[in-house]
Amino acid sequence: MSREADAADQGDGERVRELVSALRPADVADLMGFLTADYRREILPHVPPDELAELLSELETNIREEVLESLEPATLAKALEALDSDDAADVLDDLDEHRRQSVLAALPAVDRSAIEASLAYDDGTAGRLMQREVVYAPQFWTVGQVIDHMGRGAEELPELFFEVYVVDPAMRPVGGAPVSSLLRVKHETPLSELMEAVTEIPVDMDQEEVAYIFDKYHLISAPVVDAGGRLVGQITVDDVIGVVQEESQEDMLALANVSDAGRDATTGEIVRSRLPWLVLNLATETVAVSAIAVYQDEIARIVALAVLMPIISSLGGNAGTQTLAVAVRALASRELNASNTARIIGRELAAGLLTGVSLALVLGLAVFTFYHDYKLALTAGLALVADIFVAAVGGIVAPLLLERVGRDPAVSSSIIVTFLTDLCGFFAVLAIAALILL
Amino acid sequence: MSREADAADQGDGERVRELVSALRPADVADLMGFLTADYRREILPHVPPDELAELLSELETNIREEVLESLEPATLAKALEALDSDDAADVLDDLDEHRRQSVLAALPAVDRSAIEASLAYDDGTAGRLMQREVVYAPQFWTVGQVIDHMGRGAEELPELFFEVYVVDPAMRPVGGAPVSSLLRVKHETPLSELMEAVTEIPVDMDQEEVAYIFDKYHLISAPVVDAGGRLVGQITVDDVIGVVQEESQEDMLALANVSDAGRDATTGEIVRSRLPWLVLNLATETVAVSAIAVYQDEIARIVALAVLMPIISSLGGNAGTQTLAVAVRALASRELNASNTARIIGRELAAGLLTGVSLALVLGLAVFTFYHDYKLALTAGLALVADIFVAAVGGIVAPLLLERVGRDPAVSSSIIVTFLTDLCGFFAVLAIAALILL
Repeated sequence: MSREADAADQGDGERVRELVSALRPADVADLMGFLTADYRREILPHVPPDELAELLSELETNIREEVLESLEPATLAKALEALDSDDAADVLDDLDEHRRQSVLAALPAVDRSAIEASLAYDDGTAGRLMQREVVYAPQFWTVGQVIDHMGRGAEELPELFFEVYVVDPAMRPVGGAPVSSLLRVKHETPLSELMEAVTEIPVDMDQEEVAYIFDKYHLISAPVVDAGGRLVGQITVDDVIGVVQEESQEDMLALANVSDAGRDATTGEIVRSRLPWLVLNLATETVAVSAIAVYQDEIARIVALAVLMPIISSLGGNAGTQTLAVAVRALASRELNASNTARIIGRELAAGLLTGVSLALVLGLAVFTFYHDYKLALTAGLALVADIFVAAVGGIVAPLLLERVGRDPAVSSSIIVTFLTDLCGFFAVLAIAALILL
Repeated sequence: MSREADAADQGDGERVRELVSALRPADVADLMGFLTADYRREILPHVPPDELAELLSELETNIREEVLESLEPATLAKALEALDSDDAADVLDDLDEHRRQSVLAALPAVDRSAIEASLAYDDGTAGRLMQREVVYAPQFWTVGQVIDHMGRGAEELPELFFEVYVVDPAMRPVGGAPVSSLLRVKHETPLSELMEAVTEIPVDMDQEEVAYIFDKYHLISAPVVDAGGRLVGQITVDDVIGVVQEESQEDMLALANVSDAGRDATTGEIVRSRLPWLVLNLATETVAVSAIAVYQDEIARIVALAVLMPIISSLGGNAGTQTLAVAVRALASRELNASNTARIIGRELAAGLLTGVSLALVLGLAVFTFYHDYKLALTAGLALVADIFVAAVGGIVAPLLLERVGRDPAVSSSIIVTFLTDLCGFFAVLAIAALILL
C-alpha cells in the first residue's frame, strides 16, 4: 500500500501506473479505500480508461461518489462504454441528475438506451440486476449458425456468457443451451437437441427472490422476461452472490436493530443510525419497568426480588433472541412456510416450556441455597418458566406475524420480543411474589 | 403437495412417477421435506436413478440420512455415478463407515478414487468444495485441438464448465480461457491468445476464504491446486453461493448464541442446542447481579434504583449488540482490518460517548419529571453514559480480540458484551447512587 502512496506523493506517474496496473480492479478499489482523498486524486489520472470502468463498479459507494465528482463527463462516458449495462447503470445511479444527463449525452446511442432502460427499473429488482447484453437464437438454428452469428456480432455480446437462450418468433424463451455443451457437439447439431429448460425471471421480481431461485436451482444464468414473457436480458450468478450476502447480513443487522452506516461513516452518521432504535428501546423499557414501580413496596420489603428480576428478564430475553434468530433464518430460506407453521410453533412452545422448566430447577436450587427460602425459590422458578414461555411465543409468533402482514420479519421483531420478556420478567417475579410471599 | 401424497397413498406408482418427474430435483427435495417418513418411502422407488442422484444432493441432511438408510448399496452406487465428485462425496459423508465401504465397492474404480480423494479433505476446505472433473490443456494447443479433445473425452468431463484451464508441463495452471471466448474465435487460434489470469485456490483453503475471493473478484470458476501448485480440481460459483449464505447466517445465529437444530429437529434437540448458552448466561448474570446484592441496603432505602437499573442495563446491552453486529459484519467482509482498526475503534468510542450523552439527557429529564429528584436524575444520566461507553468498548474490542486469537468473532462475543453491560449497568447505578445520594 505504502509504495503506491509514496510513488503518488513524489508525482511519479509512471511508477503509479505500473503499480496500479499490476493489481486487479477489486484490489485497486481496496487500495483506494485505505488512502486519503488527496492520494486518491493523485492516483486516479494514472488508471487506464478500460480499468477505470471496472474500478468504478468495485468502489464503495461513498468513495465512488467522490471519484465520480472529480471526473469529466467525457472521461466517464468513455469508461462506462466498457461495462455491461447493469454495472454502468449502477455507477450512473450515484450521480446527481444534472451530471448523469451530461454523461449519458456523451455516450453512444446504443449504450445510452441500454443504460437508461436499466435505470428505469426499481433498485432491488431483477430489472436492475440484469444485463441487457444476451446471446439468443431461434430454435431451428444449428450450433454452427449460432457460432457464426457470434463471430459477426462480437461487439454487442456480453463480456462473458454461459448460456445461449433459445427463443420463439415472439422472443419468448423456450429453453437454453449451456455454452460448454455447444463446444462438445458438431456444427450441424440442431440447437434444439442441446436445449434444456430455463427458469424465467420476471423483470419486476425482487432481488431476494432472484437470489433464492439461483441458490435453490444452482443456476449460473437465467433469462429475464418482461410482462409479455419476452426476453429482455439475463442475470448471471456473479451478480447474485452479492445479493445473497447482503440479504443475510441485513437480517443480522436488523435483528440487532442497527443499519450499517458504512466503512467511512462519520461519528455523527453512526450515532444517527443507532440512536432512534435506542430511544424506542428506552420507551419500551420504561413501560416494562412500570411493573416494578407498581410493586415498589414489595421490593422495599424483599430486596432479593431486585436481584432476581434482572436474571429472569435477561434469560427470557436471550431465549427469545435464540428462537427469533432461528425463525428469521428459517423464513429467509423458506424452510418455515405455510405447510409447517403450526407444527413449528407447537415445537417451539414445547421447547420453551422444557427449557424454562430445566433452567427453573437450576435457578430455584441456587436461590434456595443462597437465601434458604423455599417460597422465594418457588417464585424465581415459576417466574422463569413464565418468562421463557413468553420468549418462545414472542420469538416465533412475532416474525411470523410481521411476515404475514408483508413486513421484514427481522426488522423490529427483537424490540417486540425484548419488550415482552422484560415486561413479563419483572411482572411475573413481582406478581408471584405478591401472591406467595407477602 | 397433496396430490403427490394421495397418489402414493393409493399405491398408484405410475401417477407418482409422472408427478415426480415433472418437478426439478430441488422441488422434489422440498416435497420430501413436507411429507412424513412413510410417504417418503412410498415415493422413493418411483424416482428414476439419474434423478435420484441429484435428489440426494438436494435433500436436507436428516432426511437424506433416512433415505440413504433405505437404499441398497448397488442402487446408491448407480445414482452416485451420475454426480460430480464433490456432490457424491457430500452424500457419502453422511453414511456410516460400513455402508460407505459397501457403496464405494459397488462404484467403478475411477469414480471411487475421485470420491475417496474428495473425502480425504477436511469438511469446510476448498478440497471438499471442489470437483475433480476439470477441462485443461497445454499452452501450445489451438482452440480446435481443445474442442476435438473434448469431443473424445466427453465421459470424464464435468457436467457443466465455464473455463478451460491452461497448464504447464508440470500441470501447474498458467491461465484460463472462458468457454464463451472459445466460441467466438477460429479453430486455428492458439489458446494462449485467449488466456486470462486465473486465481489459484490452494486445496486446504478455508471455504469462507474461498467465498470471499469468489465474491471479491466476481469469479465463475477457479482452479484448485495442491501444495506443489499442480491443478487438482476446480470450484464453481454455484458451490460457493451456498457457502456465502451459510457463513452469513451462521454469524447471525452465533450472535444470538444459538445453533440451528434443523427443520426436522425434535423438541429435545432444540432444547439441547439452546440450553448450554442459557446456562452460561445464567452464570454470568448471577455474577452481574452480585453487584446488586452488595448494595441491598441502598435499594431498600431508594427503591427507584431498582427501577432504573434494568433500563440502563437494557439500553447498554442493546447499544453493545448494535456495535457488535456492525463489527462482525465488517470483519466478515474484510472492511475492518489491520489498516483501519485503530481508526474504527476510535470512531466507535466517540459514537458511544455521543450516544450515551444524548440518551442520558432524555433519561435524566424523564427521571427528574417523575421523581422530582435532580440527584437521582444525575445518577441515572451518569450511569447511562458509563454503560453505553462500556457497550461501545466491548462491542468493538471483544470481536477484534476474538478474531486476533483465531476465534470466530461472532461466537460468544455477545455473551461477553451482555455480561459487561449488565455488570456495569447495575454497578454504575448503585455506586454512583452511593456516592451522591446517600
